[in-house]
Amino acid sequence: MPKVSEDHLAARRSQILDGARRCFAEFGYEGATVRRLEEATGLSRGAIFHHFKDKDGLFLALAHEDAQRMADVAAEQGLVQVMRDMIAQPEQFDWLATRVEITRRLRTDAEFARAWSQRGAELTEATASRLEQQKSAGRLRDDVPDKVLLEYLDLVLDGLISRLASGQDTDRLGQVLDLVEESVRKVK
Amino acid sequence: MPKVSEDHLAARRSQILDGARRCFAEFGYEGATVRRLEEATGLSRGAIFHHFKDKDGLFLALAHEDAQRMADVAAEQGLVQVMRDMIAQPEQFDWLATRVEITRRLRTDAEFARAWSQRGAELTEATASRLEQQKSAGRLRDDVPDKVLLEYLDLVLDGLISRLASGQDTDRLGQVLDLVEESVRKVK
Repeated sequence: MPKVSEDHLAARRSQILDGARRCFAEFGYEGATVRRLEEATGLSRGAIFHHFKDKDGLFLALAHEDAQRMADVAAEQGLVQVMRDMIAQPEQFDWLATRVEITRRLRTDAEFARAWSQRGAELTEATASRLEQQKSAGRLRDDVPDKVLLEYLDLVLDGLISRLASGQDTDRLGQVLDLVEESVRKVK
Repeated sequence: MPKVSEDHLAARRSQILDGARRCFAEFGYEGATVRRLEEATGLSRGAIFHHFKDKDGLFLALAHEDAQRMADVAAEQGLVQVMRDMIAQPEQFDWLATRVEITRRLRTDAEFARAWSQRGAELTEATASRLEQQKSAGRLRDDVPDKVLLEYLDLVLDGLISRLASGQDTDRLGQVLDLVEESVRKVK
């Protein structure tokens, strides 16, 4: 067998993820059949599931990609900036609808819920450490526990994902995010 | 044919809605087949669809019931109180997951989206008029347009529905709602 380079493996993995993201976006979680995943990625099911255990594995890997990208922004600029980026990128909305579709499974499938929360832990940690840093700099309100502020920002993010996924008007959301940002800041 | 009283019609309608709510909660939107709706309501498909046009009609009627109940509370005590009531009633979470499942359709099915937003208009109006009233009483912040405050509260509500539907821990949400309430109030 030919020796496959690390670069080649990474490129193949990335090709699968990009195709799968488009496929989930277009057909939804249930509608993204193995045949459609093959068409969207241009690869056989054998190749796809050599890299990812199953459809859940693919889906969780995509959620993990999102979480990593968001965590990078959150660590430097905070979770509100992550949300500002989201309302500036309407092309991501299709995929967000698929994220929303799996909500019921989070409640009914404990193993899936555990895998999901592991994949999102990075973002929570990045946001928490950014809050810590803002607090040290005297920019964060100190009359509310950090954990409550974190939970608050996370709740607004859930609302935003739901809003974007449903294709509703996002015109006023910039001003709403100003309000959210201000409400976690220290009053001068 | 026997003359059917108004009371009888209302009772029958209510019997159908209660059964359908349980059925959607247990099986989800797709899983709530006509056969299962018959079992859950104890009525034939003929009887069910004499009162409601189709499954969408049933689903929208349930969403409308929710919106009316929430609007009654929002008009008197505001949308944050509606949210406090939600976190106090875990038995409603199952149905909320079904609300979340229809998110994709809101983006892809214009007629359904229109019907959905009509059913929710009552709650928006009740919240808007409560905000207006709070403003007159000098309790609402006046440095942010009312429409932005309304959008903000609505966004948090979407987040809360998503959170409850996914069965996540709601321990800290009471404190989060305190923060939300405070952030729309006038600073004294």
